[in-house]
Order: sequence, then C-alpha cells, then structure tokens
Amino acid sequence: MPHNGVRLIIGYDGTDFAGWQLQPGQRTVQGELERTIEQIAGHPVRVHGASRTDAGVHALGQVAAFESARKLLPRNWVLALNSKLPEDVVVRHAAQCQPGYRPRYDALDKTYRYLLHVGVVRDPLLRHRAWHLGRMLRREFPDQNSFEGAKALLDLYAMRQAAQALVGTHDFRAFRASDDTRENAVRTLYDVTIRERYGDCPDVLAIEVRGSAFLKAMVRIVVGTLVEVGRGKLACEQVSRLLTSEGQRPQAGKTAPACGLTLVNITLGRKSQE
Amino acid sequence: MPHNGVRLIIGYDGTDFAGWQLQPGQRTVQGELERTIEQIAGHPVRVHGASRTDAGVHALGQVAAFESARKLLPRNWVLALNSKLPEDVVVRHAAQCQPGYRPRYDALDKTYRYLLHVGVVRDPLLRHRAWHLGRMLRREFPDQNSFEGAKALLDLYAMRQAAQALVGTHDFRAFRASDDTRENAVRTLYDVTIRERYGDCPDVLAIEVRGSAFLKAMVRIVVGTLVEVGRGKLACEQVSRLLTSEGQRPQAGKTAPACGLTLVNITLGRKSQE
Repeated sequence: MPHNGVRLIIGYDGTDFAGWQLQPGQRTVQGELERTIEQIAGHPVRVHGASRTDAGVHALGQVAAFESARKLLPRNWVLALNSKLPEDVVVRHAAQCQPGYRPRYDALDKTYRYLLHVGVVRDPLLRHRAWHLGRMLRREFPDQNSFEGAKALLDLYAMRQAAQALVGTHDFRAFRASDDTRENAVRTLYDVTIRERYGDCPDVLAIEVRGSAFLKAMVRIVVGTLVEVGRGKLACEQVSRLLTSEGQRPQAGKTAPACGLTLVNITLGRKSQE
Repeated sequence: MPHNGVRLIIGYDGTDFAGWQLQPGQRTVQGELERTIEQIAGHPVRVHGASRTDAGVHALGQVAAFESARKLLPRNWVLALNSKLPEDVVVRHAAQCQPGYRPRYDALDKTYRYLLHVGVVRDPLLRHRAWHLGRMLRREFPDQNSFEGAKALLDLYAMRQAAQALVGTHDFRAFRASDDTRENAVRTLYDVTIRERYGDCPDVLAIEVRGSAFLKAMVRIVVGTLVEVGRGKLACEQVSRLLTSEGQRPQAGKTAPACGLTLVNITLGRKSQE
C-alpha cells in the first residue's frame, strides 16, 4: 500500500500542454507527472493539483501531492523526477506530507501574473509569454511614422482605479467562463496591481492578481476588462456595477489569451505543516 | 532595376533557426527575410546583415539592408513584412538608405546580452533563453536539503574584476572559435557589465558586452571564461595573460551555449544618415 505522502512545487511552460488536468489522448502536465512518478514509484499514481490551469497557461508555483509506496528523501524525488521529466516541466521543491493531503483544499491564496505586450510591432521573444495588443492599438495609433510609445494609448490611471474596485469580496459571476455554473460565485481578491515594467521589456505591463480562489477564466476576464478600461471603452463605474449578482458576463471584457498568464504562487495553510 | 535602399531593424527568437546566414536546405533568418521581401518586391532580393548570429542566438536589434524596385513608405515595409513573416521573426523598424548600403561596414558598436541561469533546478520558462549552470553547480552545492541560493556559489566580485580586465583594445585570439583564422584578432571592448537580476528572475545573471566588432563565438567564450572565474577555476590574472598574441584558446573557458545570447543593439555610423 502506498502510504508516503509527497508534496511538490511545479513549474511549467504551458505552450505545448492541453492544460494541467488529465485528458485522454492529450498532453497534460498532470499526465506527464503521473507517468514519470510511476516510473520511479513502480506503481500507479494519482497526482492531485491545487489549480487546474488551462491550455497555454504557465506556472512557477503550482502545488501537487501524491502517495507512493517508495520512500525517498524529498531532495531525491526532485532530482529523480527532473532527470526524467520533459524539459517544459520541472519539480522545483518537494516535501513530505500526510497521505491524502489535497493542496486544493489547503490553499490560502493564489497569485497569478498576466503580461500585456503593449507595442504596435509584435515581439518574437514574447510570443508565448504575453498578450500582444498590437492590432487593437494600431487603429488608434496617432503617429503614422513611428511605432514607439504605444503604451501611452492605455489609460493606466483608469486601469488602476478599476483594479482597486475589484479588490475585496464580491460576486464575480460576470467574470467567469459561461460553462462555470457553480451556484456560489462570491470570491475575494486581496490585491490587483499593475506594474509598468516587467524585466527589461519597456512595452510590457504586468498585472498581478492575488485572491482566495478563482472562478473559471476569472483572471483572464479581469485582464480583458482592465484592457477595455485602459482603452476608454469601459468606465470604472461600469466595472463596479458588474460586481453584483446582477453582473452579466457579456458586459465585462473579453477573455485575455492563455499565453499571457502564469500561476506564480500558492500559499498553503496549516495542513501543509502536519 | 532595383534602386530603393531599405534598412531594417530585426528581432528574432533564434531557437528554431540555423543562424542568420543563408545556408542551402536550412531554415535561416536571412532566408526567411529574402523569401518574404521577394513576395512583396516581386523580384529576387539579397539581404545584407550587420552580424552573422549563430544557430540558437536571438536578436532584438539586428540590422539589415536590401534594394528593391518597389517603392514603399518605410512604415508600410514594416506592416507588409510583419504580416507575412513567421512568428519568430519581426521587423521592428524600417528606414530609407542609399542603395548599396552595407550595415556591416557601418556598425560603430554592437551590444550583446548573455543570460546565465544560476540555479540547481532548471526553469522551463528560461530553457531557450539562458544557460542553465545547474549540473555544474550541483556538485559544489553545500546544502543537501535546499536548492535555494545557488548564486552564492559564483564569486561575482572576481567575475567583475575579470570583466574589467577584458575591457579595452586587446588581441582576443584566445577568445575565438578555432575555425576563425583571420590574421587580425585585435578588437576593442567598451563595456562588460554583470547585473545580478534580470527581470523577475532572481537566479539570473545578465552579462552585457559592448564592443567595436567581435571574433567568431567571442562573446560566448568570454562568458564561458567569466563563469570559470566565478567558480574559482581561473584567476583574474590568468584572464589578463590570455589577452596577448600568445593567448591560447584552450586556456580560456568553454564556449557558452548559443541559447543564452541575444544581439541587443547595433549603433550605426554616418552612412546610415545619408
């Protein structure tokens, strides 16, 4: 009987995955992990993730747990798994945990980062990392001879106001995919911050969202809505009005593409200490 | 007769290219550009680049020029080319230039950036962008239970001293690929700087090298040498001794992998103003 619990922190480049969750005939992160752990454990393994990221979404801090009959030191799980995992997935850390530990029910908060590339000309080095707003901006671009300074087309002040309006406990039903039909759409966002630089890329805005839990596609719809605010197509008060049980999905912005999104961190609760 | 000169600034993700320069049967940046320009110009075109980057090397600021019978406004060259180029190449800027303009002979300086990922565990999101020193560091890693803080294994002070020793006009024959047999190996480096952060990646060192011109694989051998200094395998005085006509390639560090290198900028001279 497998009775050693192992908890992992996992990073991946989501570009070539059909998302986290196991799907028959598709390449998924959970699938690659289970296959690799089974090679080492020598028996079938079920991996339980904290967050079901969509196809194309990246991760630095996904958390997952499994049980194994094989007892290895945590560091040896890291080394053994990384020597066999494909190059677009990595185990960053391992720890012992109770068998039956489910990180999904132990997450205190999750932090996602979304990168917007606000430039008229696309950037090959960002194509799988950021949403390129180029085509959207080109129509509104004032200078016909230069392609610099597109970021000035977004009203960052209005975007930050709308971001503040989203913080708190609200009914986010206007900010979820239409196939997410859970009864309770009340969630809490702790922070929504917008940084004007990301690394060495002057044309990149980084939107970071930290919350208790998220509805399906919620971060991407929040980002799509903030972009509409930045373009002056949606007023901050309209965003506030969406945060009620009368909120309607079509009045929010469109769902931003998956490639811009990274699951950065999951803060775990008490059960992870047992 | 084609008699309109056009100068381009080009960016690319070098991962899937066999380098800049045209090679029969291989996918090259020059090849993709010529093919695309020919579609628009309606006649054969030769593209002249400023720098022959190797397979896997990226660019933000490659410069190239060509002549065309078709007269388009520079911004329309940008838009027309980008709508047809594959997603891993982009034209960032276009300008008129004299027919026959060769950017290679008009470059005042070139700046390259090299990213080192100094972490025990690899990072899927950096795998085509940085040289992962993991395996090299793991053997020397003091703490058997944690994978944090690998950067402390590199002596940054010594690396910066050696970087300063490289600045200036020297015979760099010890710092070139063995098949580069040009008589004159004297080159000038203006700056070699090492930054301890790159973007949001705490485990990344960015080495930036600006020089008048470079020998084959010179930046990558400089980086390989600085890493040996950082690991304490090579003393700063040994690096200084390599900078003479007696310098021997095998005494320098190994050639750092191409994926970490990006051609960031080329400063052009007077001819570009004509």
